Amino acid sequence: MTSIQIFNYAGVFVFAATGGLAASRRQLDIIAFVFLAAVTGIGGGTLRDLILGVPVFWVREPGYILVCAAAAIIVYFSANLLESRYRLLLWLDALGLSAYSVMGAAKALALGFSPTIAVVTGILTATFGGVLRDIVSGEPSVLMRREIYVTAALAGSAAYTLLLGLSAGPEMSALLAALTAFAVRGGALYFGWTLPNY
Amino acid sequence: MTSIQIFNYAGVFVFAATGGLAASRRQLDIIAFVFLAAVTGIGGGTLRDLILGVPVFWVREPGYILVCAAAAIIVYFSANLLESRYRLLLWLDALGLSAYSVMGAAKALALGFSPTIAVVTGILTATFGGVLRDIVSGEPSVLMRREIYVTAALAGSAAYTLLLGLSAGPEMSALLAALTAFAVRGGALYFGWTLPNY
Amino acid sequence: MTSIQIFNYAGVFVFAATGGLAASRRQLDIIAFVFLAAVTGIGGGTLRDLILGVPVFWVREPGYILVCAAAAIIVYFSANLLESRYRLLLWLDALGLSAYSVMGAAKALALGFSPTIAVVTGILTATFGGVLRDIVSGEPSVLMRREIYVTAALAGSAAYTLLLGLSAGPEMSALLAALTAFAVRGGALYFGWTLPNY
Repeated sequence: MTSIQIFNYAGVFVFAATGGLAASRRQLDIIAFVFLAAVTGIGGGTLRDLILGVPVFWVREPGYILVCAAAAIIVYFSANLLESRYRLLLWLDALGLSAYSVMGAAKALALGFSPTIAVVTGILTATFGGVLRDIVSGEPSVLMRREIYVTAALAGSAAYTLLLGLSAGPEMSALLAALTAFAVRGGALYFGWTLPNY
Repeated sequence: MTSIQIFNYAGVFVFAATGGLAASRRQLDIIAFVFLAAVTGIGGGTLRDLILGVPVFWVREPGYILVCAAAAIIVYFSANLLESRYRLLLWLDALGLSAYSVMGAAKALALGFSPTIAVVTGILTATFGGVLRDIVSGEPSVLMRREIYVTAALAGSAAYTLLLGLSAGPEMSALLAALTAFAVRGGALYFGWTLPNY
Repeated sequence: MTSIQIFNYAGVFVFAATGGLAASRRQLDIIAFVFLAAVTGIGGGTLRDLILGVPVFWVREPGYILVCAAAAIIVYFSANLLESRYRLLLWLDALGLSAYSVMGAAKALALGFSPTIAVVTGILTATFGGVLRDIVSGEPSVLMRREIYVTAALAGSAAYTLLLGLSAGPEMSALLAALTAFAVRGGALYFGWTLPNY
């Protein structure tokens, strides 16, 4: 398994865990945990692949589904130990957003699409899983919160596109870009960073 | 028309009828009835076909759209006779879920995908139309109810995959698997069955 | 640039502007304005292309994304001058719906699909961007309002399909059909037109 693949699996895992946390907040059963974890974990990447016109990633590698199920089961048996599940959901969502903003841009660039499309795909991939999770579980969308959110996804996918264009290696670019996105979103969560609101 | 096709049409019809019932609860006009019926009736199968990378089924066979329109019109002119439209919506939704859990798995297997993918596709196909209906009509999602729901879709698609693997004929497998799904979801509706909730 | 392309860009622009107005009602930041504008502006056309099985239009012509960004920025810096932003949103939505009902049908017919599919695709294209906007921004869906909505999209896509079938030129057909849709939806907004509600 390459380090990029590990990166992919990690992104799916943490996003899936946020789906499990949303399920725990709605007091659903274990199968619904797995369902919501899978929708969140693979939703963004599914949209990315449909838009790019390539086979959906998890149809070829069912391991991604198993990772979602594992994340759901771990959350099912441990979330009761947490003090604030929504707080953890937001932080894991920040991790997933960081990984996915890079994965989205990386796949578009690898397929030969333009930098503009790569940045847009990165943002859509990073945000769509969480949007689906919030819609299906009936929570207010995380996108509608005041702190910086979409901007972090933009930072990650733009940084990756830029670094790769500057001939940084793909693994170094991915790592630095994901750290950029996480720094932006993490700062927003920790310090309440906002851009000027309307 | 093969018996599998009749099965497909029946599934689309009952799901479309739930869309019509949702429209009647929102007191929409006849065109909006047809719209919501079509979104519900063909939404799950559309997602299935996009994920599997095959042409969307109703684009090739516009009869499915006409079936949705017929379901909407029947509901428009008869739903006022009903005592509890939401109760009927839930039971028709159970029928649609049963048919679609099989249709989703069957198409994936027929295209040569693995059993894991077939089960996942079955679940997504069976649930996505209802999710769309509830989102568009602004109802709380049926998935968020406490009684067993996703589990019934899992039972149907897993049963079909298993029976076909055991060399039962496709028609017998489809019938038994749909009955399994309906027994699980029907029991949940009638007796209030739940799995242990979180 | 052909006049059909100008038509396409105009439709994307006005729909994107409604996304910006929705963002202003939620007091989001500029990046979220652009995001919501893009989702609304290109959402319907993206669904159309996925269903028809052709490459997603904006992936090939990134100019559409820039148009969405421009619409968002213009709304960001001018919406505070407006007396009623929701009223403007509804009227721009009517313009977008009119353009998109034609664009949806036109693309399906140009690809050789049947009139039925063209009308259905026209309706889906015209309504889906607004549905996404309302879902993501947490507003009640514009589809659930009592005044005529889906019917206007049907009028536009059916008129285009009919006029083209009667050998009117594509540009004249597009113009007349969009005017038809806008007359229906505009009348609904201005005079409160409804079909008999359930």
